[in-house]
Amino acid sequence: MLTPVTPTLADSVRLTEDGLLILDRRVFPFRHRWVRCTTAEETAQAIEDMVTQSSGPLFAAAGGMVLAARAVRHLGAQAAADHLRAAGQRMIATRPTNNHIRDAVRAVLAVLDAGPLGGDDLVCAVSRQAAAHTAAYRAHCAALGENTASLLPDRAAILTHCWADLYLTSTVDAARRAGKELSFVCTETRPYLQGARLTATTLVEYGYRPTVITDGMIPAALSDGLAGIVLTAADRVTLDGHVVNKVGTLAAALAAQAFAVPFYVMVEAPDPHAPRAEDVVIERRDGEEVLRVLGQRSAADGTAGYYPAFDVTPPGLITRIVTAKGVFEPSSVTGHFTGGRAERALPAS
Amino acid sequence: MLTPVTPTLADSVRLTEDGLLILDRRVFPFRHRWVRCTTAEETAQAIEDMVTQSSGPLFAAAGGMVLAARAVRHLGAQAAADHLRAAGQRMIATRPTNNHIRDAVRAVLAVLDAGPLGGDDLVCAVSRQAAAHTAAYRAHCAALGENTASLLPDRAAILTHCWADLYLTSTVDAARRAGKELSFVCTETRPYLQGARLTATTLVEYGYRPTVITDGMIPAALSDGLAGIVLTAADRVTLDGHVVNKVGTLAAALAAQAFAVPFYVMVEAPDPHAPRAEDVVIERRDGEEVLRVLGQRSAADGTAGYYPAFDVTPPGLITRIVTAKGVFEPSSVTGHFTGGRAERALPAS
Repeated sequence: MLTPVTPTLADSVRLTEDGLLILDRRVFPFRHRWVRCTTAEETAQAIEDMVTQSSGPLFAAAGGMVLAARAVRHLGAQAAADHLRAAGQRMIATRPTNNHIRDAVRAVLAVLDAGPLGGDDLVCAVSRQAAAHTAAYRAHCAALGENTASLLPDRAAILTHCWADLYLTSTVDAARRAGKELSFVCTETRPYLQGARLTATTLVEYGYRPTVITDGMIPAALSDGLAGIVLTAADRVTLDGHVVNKVGTLAAALAAQAFAVPFYVMVEAPDPHAPRAEDVVIERRDGEEVLRVLGQRSAADGTAGYYPAFDVTPPGLITRIVTAKGVFEPSSVTGHFTGGRAERALPAS
Repeated sequence: MLTPVTPTLADSVRLTEDGLLILDRRVFPFRHRWVRCTTAEETAQAIEDMVTQSSGPLFAAAGGMVLAARAVRHLGAQAAADHLRAAGQRMIATRPTNNHIRDAVRAVLAVLDAGPLGGDDLVCAVSRQAAAHTAAYRAHCAALGENTASLLPDRAAILTHCWADLYLTSTVDAARRAGKELSFVCTETRPYLQGARLTATTLVEYGYRPTVITDGMIPAALSDGLAGIVLTAADRVTLDGHVVNKVGTLAAALAAQAFAVPFYVMVEAPDPHAPRAEDVVIERRDGEEVLRVLGQRSAADGTAGYYPAFDVTPPGLITRIVTAKGVFEPSSVTGHFTGGRAERALPAS
């Protein structure tokens, strides 16, 4: 039971000597296909095309910046810095809602703060910074996992939407270390089926037998007692406690409220640059993606698809927001930064 | 604009001299395949296997009873009656939640009320009764369509879940006659994609360009103002105003409540035999059906599927229930039978 598990998806973006290998999450687990990016531009394209998602773009963006630094090692320091900054802008423009990409790019570009760097110095500094940033992220996820696991009773039956990536695996790791038994219900999460494919595969790798439901079945599943906790990641949390996450999260939150089930949200940290929901750009993806399933046409001809990739859940529907620093009521999530109002566990009420 | 339209699905169960042809809704519109049933048992199997659904089983059950009568025309009257009743029991046992099948069988079996019939007399009586029952259903749907259309303002933007079949086509027919412009958002309705395939195709046949969303996008669509009315069918309405309909309807109702959008439900009539929600058997289908899309595996190996085919929406989430007799508040839906409290249109408030 306590054998450590390294899920496939926890190491699915790999920097090599001559490129960046990204496990193609669009076809996993049915195919194990790695997309090889040799430039920052190819990496940006892969992020746009959803080759990887959830935490994946953070690792891909960091790796893509290393590719960018390698590509300009023969330029002068100023030109190299300009190219690196442009590569960062391109990377940030791939997907607007989650701030992982922006933060990874900013962290890497900080190597230029003391002035232009060139050649191997630039490559080394960028590589070191990229590695430090991803290592810090993993450490934050581990802390978040401990905090989340502290909220879960033994034998918790958890319903989760989409794929919470390292937030989820860290939580499972921490719960297993604490000897807690868990069970899972996964929404399949159309249109990309991240729940049915990514979350479910990972939980199976841990030895669980997750139950898969369609996205419309959440109220029925809660009504039938299949789960007693709803737990999702957030792509972004605003300072006033709004949660921006994969579209469908709001539906899960409404169902949790209707059946008086706690709704917990995991995020590394709130976004200090997003005071309110209005400050978050909701990515609108090509509606055609909704009209297909796994490459096969699923909707009638003559229809239009509509695809807001994320929705916004207001703080009133959220029981607690868990960060790397603690467990917060949505209205007090800025406590993440001030250290003032974290709670490790819910009050008995 | 006012050219009458006969959607393909409005005439998708056809009795012939030597069998019953049922358009296979599992593959429509991508393939136009008709399943030919030559016996009542084959018809029951087709209903169980979801060859047809929504209003389809009513027509299939009525046709299947004609096949049963034809098959026993050479038996004595008493034996023929026994066989016909057994065929009816088998038909009713196919799917428990919607009462269309039960009512169609009862209507046909009423030919035996005056005593056993045999031979051509039985076949003629059953055929006549089956035709009368389906004609009455179409007439009730037309009345329901008029009542529903009366609730829709011109330029109404309607979000609908699953496939409301003749309730929807009758409503569209009535709204078109009244010169009202409509627009539609369809949930795709996993696992069978009735919304993306059946509802969308039918609306395209009418000349609309429906927007398809995934089942988890309802709150986002309402938040974004894509629709101002949520409208679904009901498979069953209890006398205390609970609505039993395709799983996901409750999620639509919760979203409608959250965004203060009216939620209208269409049903031919409440079920006089179901005083409360507890009196309705919710069909649980094979969970494996959730793990596939259009025949293709969509979920990870090692998972279990869960498939309650219907969910239960409480009266507090429903704005009005529309029947063939009028428009009712959920708490007054028994007015359908007493004629006491129907309203043709909503109060201005």
